[in-house]
Order: sequence, then structure tokens, then C-alpha cells
Amino acid sequence: MIRIWVVNPNTTASMTEGIGRCANAVAGPGTEITAVTSRSGPPSIESHYDEAMSVPGLLDAIASGEQAGADGYVVACFGDPGLDAAREVATGPVIGIAEAAMHTASHLGRGFSVVTTLARTTGRAAELAERYGMQRFCLGIHACEIPVLDLETDPTAQKVVTEACRDAVERDGSDAIVLGCAGMAEMCRAISAEVGVPVVDGVTAATLTVQSLVTMGLTTGKRGEYAPPPPKQYL
Amino acid sequence: MIRIWVVNPNTTASMTEGIGRCANAVAGPGTEITAVTSRSGPPSIESHYDEAMSVPGLLDAIASGEQAGADGYVVACFGDPGLDAAREVATGPVIGIAEAAMHTASHLGRGFSVVTTLARTTGRAAELAERYGMQRFCLGIHACEIPVLDLETDPTAQKVVTEACRDAVERDGSDAIVLGCAGMAEMCRAISAEVGVPVVDGVTAATLTVQSLVTMGLTTGKRGEYAPPPPKQYL
Amino acid sequence: MIRIWVVNPNTTASMTEGIGRCANAVAGPGTEITAVTSRSGPPSIESHYDEAMSVPGLLDAIASGEQAGADGYVVACFGDPGLDAAREVATGPVIGIAEAAMHTASHLGRGFSVVTTLARTTGRAAELAERYGMQRFCLGIHACEIPVLDLETDPTAQKVVTEACRDAVERDGSDAIVLGCAGMAEMCRAISAEVGVPVVDGVTAATLTVQSLVTMGLTTGKRGEYAPPPPKQYL
Amino acid sequence: MIRIWVVNPNTTASMTEGIGRCANAVAGPGTEITAVTSRSGPPSIESHYDEAMSVPGLLDAIASGEQAGADGYVVACFGDPGLDAAREVATGPVIGIAEAAMHTASHLGRGFSVVTTLARTTGRAAELAERYGMQRFCLGIHACEIPVLDLETDPTAQKVVTEACRDAVERDGSDAIVLGCAGMAEMCRAISAEVGVPVVDGVTAATLTVQSLVTMGLTTGKRGEYAPPPPKQYL
Amino acid sequence: MIRIWVVNPNTTASMTEGIGRCANAVAGPGTEITAVTSRSGPPSIESHYDEAMSVPGLLDAIASGEQAGADGYVVACFGDPGLDAAREVATGPVIGIAEAAMHTASHLGRGFSVVTTLARTTGRAAELAERYGMQRFCLGIHACEIPVLDLETDPTAQKVVTEACRDAVERDGSDAIVLGCAGMAEMCRAISAEVGVPVVDGVTAATLTVQSLVTMGLTTGKRGEYAPPPPKQYL
Amino acid sequence: MIRIWVVNPNTTASMTEGIGRCANAVAGPGTEITAVTSRSGPPSIESHYDEAMSVPGLLDAIASGEQAGADGYVVACFGDPGLDAAREVATGPVIGIAEAAMHTASHLGRGFSVVTTLARTTGRAAELAERYGMQRFCLGIHACEIPVLDLETDPTAQKVVTEACRDAVERDGSDAIVLGCAGMAEMCRAISAEVGVPVVDGVTAATLTVQSLVTMGLTTGKRGEYAPPPPKQYL
Repeated sequence: MIRIWVVNPNTTASMTEGIGRCANAVAGPGTEITAVTSRSGPPSIESHYDEAMSVPGLLDAIASGEQAGADGYVVACFGDPGLDAAREVATGPVIGIAEAAMHTASHLGRGFSVVTTLARTTGRAAELAERYGMQRFCLGIHACEIPVLDLETDPTAQKVVTEACRDAVERDGSDAIVLGCAGMAEMCRAISAEVGVPVVDGVTAATLTVQSLVTMGLTTGKRGEYAPPPPKQYL
Repeated sequence: MIRIWVVNPNTTASMTEGIGRCANAVAGPGTEITAVTSRSGPPSIESHYDEAMSVPGLLDAIASGEQAGADGYVVACFGDPGLDAAREVATGPVIGIAEAAMHTASHLGRGFSVVTTLARTTGRAAELAERYGMQRFCLGIHACEIPVLDLETDPTAQKVVTEACRDAVERDGSDAIVLGCAGMAEMCRAISAEVGVPVVDGVTAATLTVQSLVTMGLTTGKRGEYAPPPPKQYL
Repeated sequence: MIRIWVVNPNTTASMTEGIGRCANAVAGPGTEITAVTSRSGPPSIESHYDEAMSVPGLLDAIASGEQAGADGYVVACFGDPGLDAAREVATGPVIGIAEAAMHTASHLGRGFSVVTTLARTTGRAAELAERYGMQRFCLGIHACEIPVLDLETDPTAQKVVTEACRDAVERDGSDAIVLGCAGMAEMCRAISAEVGVPVVDGVTAATLTVQSLVTMGLTTGKRGEYAPPPPKQYL
Repeated sequence: MIRIWVVNPNTTASMTEGIGRCANAVAGPGTEITAVTSRSGPPSIESHYDEAMSVPGLLDAIASGEQAGADGYVVACFGDPGLDAAREVATGPVIGIAEAAMHTASHLGRGFSVVTTLARTTGRAAELAERYGMQRFCLGIHACEIPVLDLETDPTAQKVVTEACRDAVERDGSDAIVLGCAGMAEMCRAISAEVGVPVVDGVTAATLTVQSLVTMGLTTGKRGEYAPPPPKQYL
Repeated sequence: MIRIWVVNPNTTASMTEGIGRCANAVAGPGTEITAVTSRSGPPSIESHYDEAMSVPGLLDAIASGEQAGADGYVVACFGDPGLDAAREVATGPVIGIAEAAMHTASHLGRGFSVVTTLARTTGRAAELAERYGMQRFCLGIHACEIPVLDLETDPTAQKVVTEACRDAVERDGSDAIVLGCAGMAEMCRAISAEVGVPVVDGVTAATLTVQSLVTMGLTTGKRGEYAPPPPKQYL
Repeated sequence: MIRIWVVNPNTTASMTEGIGRCANAVAGPGTEITAVTSRSGPPSIESHYDEAMSVPGLLDAIASGEQAGADGYVVACFGDPGLDAAREVATGPVIGIAEAAMHTASHLGRGFSVVTTLARTTGRAAELAERYGMQRFCLGIHACEIPVLDLETDPTAQKVVTEACRDAVERDGSDAIVLGCAGMAEMCRAISAEVGVPVVDGVTAATLTVQSLVTMGLTTGKRGEYAPPPPKQYL
């Protein structure tokens, strides 16, 4: 049995449900998915401030996972908040959905386009692409200016995202699309069918990456930078 | 049922057997592994010439896989020979073992070391690290000067590779090791236990990457560079 | 009058005092320095976890600075925690001490060495060097394995840091040294005298950078990524 | 008392006057600005040839500064001519205005645009951005095709430059503007007010950078590449 | 006497004739050109598959050259297929036409544009530019969508290529053009006259590069990666 | 008849003679070499100051070449001083010896080492390697601490340089050596024979590069950055 905790670092439970459905849809028969909502922080992550304020809640969720015996973790926000800290704290592997989605898309051709929510988040996406070595595959990052929580409620959302994907493929000459928000996860197959290129959702990609790492017995190297943090008195 | 063909692009059947065992050890219950030996080319791949001459046999194996209904392919040589051509020819995803191993190791910390066979192959490994965007994680590439086929027969081989891994971790300050040859795949767990860092074998990593891609319904983008090659009269 | 808040993002008040002395020593006659200690978080920052947990306290201090009419901010920890979020929240410029120290050192020659506390923090320092474009000047990052708070209390600390600086210059062939911890700030001139190369302390460098920016009427661009974060209900 | 020589490496005295005004406007109360015009070379610098021919005059001015006891130098041409040679010759720090402007702008957001005079100078600007590590922040370099000396005399100049800045921000999505010519220095605040983003003038930025370095007791490292040049018989 | 073998790695003899004429037009009086057509593989190289399948024929031609006492080799296809393997096998230097053309064009200004045949080959051209260090000079790669063999037969071909070159110079602001196919070699001078920028053909550039290397007594370093491949039993 | 001017930008005539002999030794039968000594500047170039002061003399020599009908130019100092300015001024191509040597060496394997005179010049060599895109091939730059003019007079010079080359190959694992000074040109073949790797001298490499460019009818693109400089009143 592989126990994967998929942590939604915002506080919106309905979004966690969608994330959980996506993770469960791809998990192997021996894998148990636990989708958890952060207990503190912002309802959606759309700024560096939101991201910073979401990290303590994320780390708290990981501490709970450790106590519950989780084998690995998905950080289900496209800014991959708190990834380094989470890797120090967790015993098993921790994968961000931007990380997993970009790596996955790099296997599908010469390059991919990212389609995300608000333009103000594209800087972080570019930074992550560089950090993961995926900059050379990332041909463009495009915003469709739909706030994260409107993805669930705005009836035109899927259409707008689909059009943004179609445009991105045209402009960038890309071989694949990466969806830049956990809230887009359930649109993935429909957009791929519409646009005619492979479309990668980070929630499913990260779930399978964690499942693969646990299957191989691999986890974060713990001899140096990612050793457990020295215990301290926190105020 | 997911059908994965794991192609050994050299002509040494005993090596294919070890590769097949590794792939089967990690494949999910719904995955069927077919390990095949190339019908033409060199018995081991230790030069650019060997690599070039292995590609027609590899592509022939993939053509067979297409006829047999394979869902995806692993190219089981650390030089990832013929990867671009294979992606044009195959309907499903194709993953090289250097590609998969490096991507996997990048999830485990700040950086990894590669330990491979002959020094003359380190140039290609460095080139692949760059191509996959993994250069920033690849802290060193080390040869242990054991020819590929001696890995099976030399009784000191595993000890020599283990020592090379230990040295590499020390010198590079790396968080993980990548084994740079399909012939080292079965040493993976033992070396990890000895050296105390995660050790990544590309055969298992690539098998699980292909399995994940097929599970997600993803394959090479086919609208541009990787469209099927135009048919021609070959001499 | 230019009001600069120098925020120590750890909770150790004695360290804030040293930081304040360094900032005051270089501030112009029309500049008022306010050195503040974070009200929450770790007593020292020596892991990604510490860093992540220090950010809410830092952002809280910046909110207080905004109310008090601060013209600009220094983030006085060499990991530059929360810099992006702070730039969204603050009206005036915000500068990290790693940022300021590396930029400053790049004006002094072909390249510099960083000498820092614990080896586990060198990964973040390298990441920051890349982010700031200073990677090409950063010839080496060296740890002296003195915990942050021991810099104040260990009577051999200055000697150990000085030796590490001397070695770094020799090994890297560097033109200057960057001290990789706010706790080393007061050692700066003595080490420079001993080792014979310019030594840059980030606290003074960042204080002067903020003072210069305010003098020029410059602050973070607020039309895009760094616009104030949209207000939300935080749990 | 900090004595800063601001050297205009072209021979046009009226331009030196504007440069001097800009430097004085930001210098601290304890700083004395000496603005000097080069005694040999071209009246404006608009080609690699102009730039090369300006360097002996610049170095001659620095030699005069050394005799007069200057504490530091600004090279007030956006091509930063002769910077390496000047650093060998001068005892105190030497800063180019492109160098200072780009570093300064990098503190203001994700990226900046450069707006300069003639298109034929954009190649050097790009080269400098790379040399200073600022390439990742430099989102575009735009020419407005006004010759340097016309900036003083053409009544439409400021309007044209302002429009070029507005366009650049739009096209590049940049957070700030860098003015790419010392002759634009006095337009800085007006353009910022018009366009609504921070606008950086290199003359003021470099003056404050030199002032800060001298305040910190920092100068070019003199143990290696930038040691005084060995004396020789010049023809 | 310098004997240069110019190998056309496709099987179309008429194309070899044009290539031979170009090489002869620039070869020095002491240089003998032998233009050879590959005995196996595709009639034109327009996919990764074509390229992979051309390599054994190319290596066979080089083996023939070795027996005939060739002093050096040109690989006359813009994908530079089999270059590494050819360098192991040949005693003298081996130069690809993309390699030679890009290096040559880098001497002519700040940057060049590549104009090639089919869009699906631009990915490889970009990869080669990176491999040769020419990425910083390569400002754009443009396809004119004429299949390789149509360059000989389509009466509008030269006009289409010329227009693509004119557009490329305009769009990229480039100083020179590189023709991205051996089949374009004989159009070179006419296009240069039309477009008014230097136009580089790789066949002539590579021929002269090989001639220069042989004149200087230089060949591939043979102590490491490019030593002759160890002999093996090929199937 | 191809007329190549090989300009020694220092004022030491004996060095020009050696340079002329090297150029003549490789020039084709239809090529006439004119080796000229700069009329102003330093007797050797060993600092940024020397380099800057050599440029007006170099440009003066090129002006003379233009009047005499030169078809192309070699700048025979490893710092490639004044290259951009020379390209604006000259009608034909201009090649620096560092440029030519590095490009040439990149054809000979995975990477080369540079062996030069004084350590203080290695910074410029590294900068040129980057500028030419040759950084990825340049595995190390090593000084043997022999001043330029001592190369002619010190009886141990060739031995010292040879040993430095041998060490460099060992340490860097390089396939070839680049000699980093025009004064080493005549040692080239002897060192290659001793050390057993290809050794590249920039004077011969640049002479043949210019000869090849003129043969192909290629010169600097003149439509943009390298158009003739606008005429001005110089003081």
C-alpha cells in the first residue's frame, strides 16, 4: 500500500475535492490518496504574499501526514510553495505540481506552453521553469486572467482556458500544454481533445511521480541540505 | 492493460534479461513488460560509433512494437540512442533511461552524480544532461572504467561501482546517484544501502515514466517536429 | 528624512542590535534606521524550514513599517526570505542582504567568494546568486560550520571565519569576499584587514542600497507582478 | 568628505554640465562631485569606433583624478568604455552608468527595458547586460533613433524618448525603465511621472553606488586581474 | 596535396554534383575534392528518422575515404548527422556544414538568421546551434517549407528562399544569413546580391574549414572521447 | 590575389616578424601577407590598460590597410583588442587570434585548454570565450607566468609553456590546446609533438579564417551595428 497525501495549500475545500478526484483517477490499485485542505492561509494563491502565507499551513499538513504514515506528498498549487522546507520535514518524497507537470511535458516534444490564471503569477512560473531546468522546454507562459476560484464557478472558464491553450500552441509552436493551476486539473482531457495536443495537468503528473518514487524506494537525499531541520524554539 | 516494450539497443541477450527483470520489478499490476534485444548492431555501446550503429536496430524493434500494439517504449541504453527518431516512429511515448534517471534524481535534492562505465562515454552523458535541462542538477560524471559487458562477469564489478559512487558523493556533495549504464540496473538497491544515498537506475525509472504517461493518456506531440516521418525510398 | 526599517527575520534581539549598529554606521545624516526583531518564527535561520517559518513574522514587521511610514526596508537574513512577498506589501523598496552584498561585490572585480555558516545553507545561497544574475561572479560558496547564534558567543568564531575567507580567496582566485550571514556583519572590517581583500557585509550594503533608491525616488514597479496583493479572507 | 569624479568620456562640455547637475542632485552632504569633460576623443559616442577612441581620454581624466585625490569615479557613458582599464588605474572604485543603472533597475521588479539613442548601440548594451549578469532582467533594448547631441537641442526629444519608454513597458511587460544614455539623465523624473513606472538614470545611480562603496571602505580588489598595470614605455 | 572527401549522406547523386561544384569553387590549388554519394539511406534528410538512417551510409563512406587516404571530410547535410561517430572513425578532421556555416557567420556581426527547408527540421538546427556554442549568434531559424529535393526542380525555389532570407533579416535584425540545406548551396551568391547581406553556405564553409585544419596539421584529438572505437562483432 | 594585413597591436617589431612568419607558413599561393607593427601603444599587452591603449594604434593600422587595398585583417593579440571598432572601419573581414583559435579548437573534440602568459590576463580570455560562444568548449585557462616579451628571450620559455600544456591536458581532460599569446605562435608544432594533442596557434588560425572568408566573398554585415562609424570632429 502506497499512501500519498495530496495537499491543497489553499483553504478552499471544494478545490481539494477536484484535486482528489484527479489524483484518484490515475493512482494505481495499491495506492491510497488522501486529499487534504490546508488549515490556515489564503483561500486561493494569486500573489507572492498569498504563497508565503500558505506555507505554514502546508508544512503543518505535512507534519500531520508524517504522523499518519504518509509515504509521499504532492503540493497541489502551481507555485510549488514551500517545496524545499517540505522536503526537509517529510520522510518520503515531495513533488510540486509545477515541477511534475513541466518534467512530464518535457518528455512530449521540443517544448511546451504554460497556460495559467492571472498574469501576475507568470513570473513565479518562469522562475520555477528555470529552477527545474525546464526553461529550455518552456516556450511561453500565458495568462487567461481568470481568478483561481472562478475556474469552478464561471461557466465560460473552460472555454476561455481552451482558447488560451489553442493560441499558445499557435504562437509558441509548442508540442504540448501545461495547465498552470490545480483548479484547471479536471479540464485537462477535454482541452486536449479540443486543441489536439497533449495537455498535462500537474496534479495527476505529481501523483504518479510520487507513486513511482515510492515504488522505486526513492526519497529526498537526507545527508546534506535536506536533512531534517535542527529543532528550535519557535515564537 | 499497458504494454511497454523495453528495448535493449545492443545485441547481448543476457543483458536484456537483467533489464527485463528490473522493469518487471516495478511495473504495476496492469502493465505488461516486453524486453527485446536488438537484432542488429554492436554487442555493447561504448563509443559514438557503437551508438550510431545501434540506432537502425532500435528503430526496427520499435517498428515491431508498433505492429504488436505496444503502448510505449523504453530505450535501455544510457546514451539514449535514436530517441528523436523513435519518437517520430512510435505512436506512444518513448523514454530513454538517461532521460528518466536524471529527471528522477532531480526530484531528490540539489544535485546528483552520475557513475558510468568508460570515461569516453562521459561526454555524451554531459550532453544529454544539458539537453534534458538536467545540467544544473548534474554535479559530476564519473567513470569506473569497467566495460559494459564486464559488469555481468567481473566478480569485483559491483564493489568497484559502489566505491565510485561513494567517492562521487563525497567529491560532488551530491544528494543522489544516477547509475550510468543499463548493465548496472540490478546493483541499484545494494549500492544505495552501502553508500547511504538514493541511487537511481534508469531502467526502472524509465519504465515507470512510460507507465505514468500512458496512464495519463499522454504521448509525443505529433503536430510538428515529431510527426510521422514522410515515407521514402530507402537504399 | 529617509526612514529605513532593517528587519531581522529571526527572533534573537541581540542579533538585531548588531545589525542596527552596522546599519547606523553607514547611514547618511538624513537617514533614520529602525532595527526590528521579528515577533514570530525561529531564533535563527539555518534550514529551509526555518526560512519558511520566518516569513509571516517578516511580513508582519513590514506591515508595521508601512503604518509607521517607513520609506524602505532591509531584510537582514542572507537567505533573503520573503523578498517577493515583501515587495508586494511595501510601498518603498525592499532589499535583501544577500542581494545587496552580491551586487556590491560584483563591482569590485571579476568574482567573489561567499563565506557562510552551515553547509546546508549553501544551496540557497547558490540559488540566490543565480536569481540575482550574480552566478557569473560567484566563484565559490564556503561554509565554516559555525551555527548562526554561536557567531556571537563562540570566542573563536571570528578567527574561524577569517581563516575560511583566506582559504576561499586562495582556492577561488576571487577579488572579494561576501559574508554570508547577518551575524557576521560586525566582523567585516577586521577580516578585510587580515585577509587583504575587500569584504562585503550585506547589512551595510543593503542599508545603503535602500538609502540610494529612496534618494532617487525609486521603488518596486507596481503595475504587474508586484502590485499590492488582492485582499482575501485568511484562515 | 567623499570626492567623486564623474567623467564624461566625450568632449562635449554642455553634456558634462547636465551630468554634473544630476550627480549633485543626489549626492549626500559629505560628498563633493567633480564633473570633468574628456580632453580627447569624439564629441559623442555612437559607434564602437567612437567608444574605442574615447578610452585614452577617459584614462587620462582618471589619472588626473588620482593626482587630485579622488575617492571614486563614475564613467558617464552608457557603453561603460574603458571600465576594466580604469579599475586597474584607479585606487578607488569605478562604476559605469550602464552597470549602475541595470543593477539598480534589477531591484525594482522582475525585469526592465532599456531605452537608448541609436539602434547601432543596442548590441553593446546587450553585451553589457550579459557581462553584469543583468541579462535575465533585461527584457528589451529599444532605440529611439535620436543622436546623442540632439537630446539637448531637439525640442521633441523628451517626447520621443517618453513615447519609446511607454511602448517598451507595454511590449516587454517590464517593471522599470533604464535610460540608455547620459544625455537623457535630466529627463528621468518627468518620464517616470508620464509613464507611471520607475525610471532609472545611470548617472545618479552610479554616483550613489560610488558614494556607497566609499562609505563602506570598499574598492576594486587589487591582488590579481585589477592590480595596477605594470609600467611600460608607450609609443 | 590535400584530399577532402565531401560526403552527401543522402542517396541523391544530382545533389552530390551541386555540392561538389560548390566545394571545388572555393578549394585551393593544392586541394582535391572528392564528392561522394552515400550508398544507403534516404534520398533526402527531412526527419530525425531520415537522419538516423543516413548515418551508417555516411560512416561507410568515411571508411572508404580512410582506405583511399582522405585527409579530411565534410558531412554535407545541415543536420550534421553522425559527426561524433565520424570523428572517432576518421584520422583527419571531420566538419559538418551546419557547424562550419554557423561558425563562419558568427565572424560577420552580432548575429545571423538561418533559413532552411521544412519547419520540422528547425528543432535540430536549434540544437546544433547550442551544441556549437552558436546559440548566442543565432537570432532566428526560419523554414520556407520547400522539400529538399524540390530545391533542384521547383522553378520558384530560389525566389521563395530569397524572400525568406529577406524577411528573416528584417525580423531578426541579423547581420548575415546561413543557408540551412546543402541543396541551397548554389543559390548563395545570388541571394546575397539580392538581399544585401552576407549569405553563408555550409558546403563551401566546411570545405575551407577542413582545408585550413589540414594545412595547420590539426585533427580531432584522439586521446579520449574520440579515440578509435574499440573493435566489436556487429550483428 | 588576397591581401591580408596581420596587425600586431603592440609596438615590438621582432614579435611582428615571428607573427609574419607564422602567417606566411600557412597562407595559400594566392595570398599575400603584410605583417605590420602598431605605431603607438605599449610594447606588449599584459593588462586592460595596455589593451585599451593599443586600440588607437591598431585602428590606425587598419586605416592604412584600407588605403593600401587590404582584403582582410588579423588582430594578432590574444585579447582581440578593438575588434568591434575594427569591423566598423574595415571593408573586409577582421578576425582576432583568440576568436580564430578558439573556434578552430572547438572542431577538434569536446573541449580545449588555453595556456597563456600572465594570470592577470585570464579574465579577459574567459570573457572572450563567452563572447564567442566558446565557453562550453573552454575547459580551463592556465597561466605560465612568463611575460610576453620573455617568450622570445627566455631560453626556458618553450619548456615552461610545454609543461603548462601537458598539465592543462591532464587536469582538464581536454582534447586540444589553444596557445594564448601571439608570442607563442612559433612554438606550436613542437609543443604538439611533445604533448601529443593538437595545439592551435591563433595567428595561423586567424590568417586562414580571413583567407577563407575572402575566398567566399564574405565580410562583416554592414547594414546595422557594424556600418561605417558616422564621421566626427575628434579632439
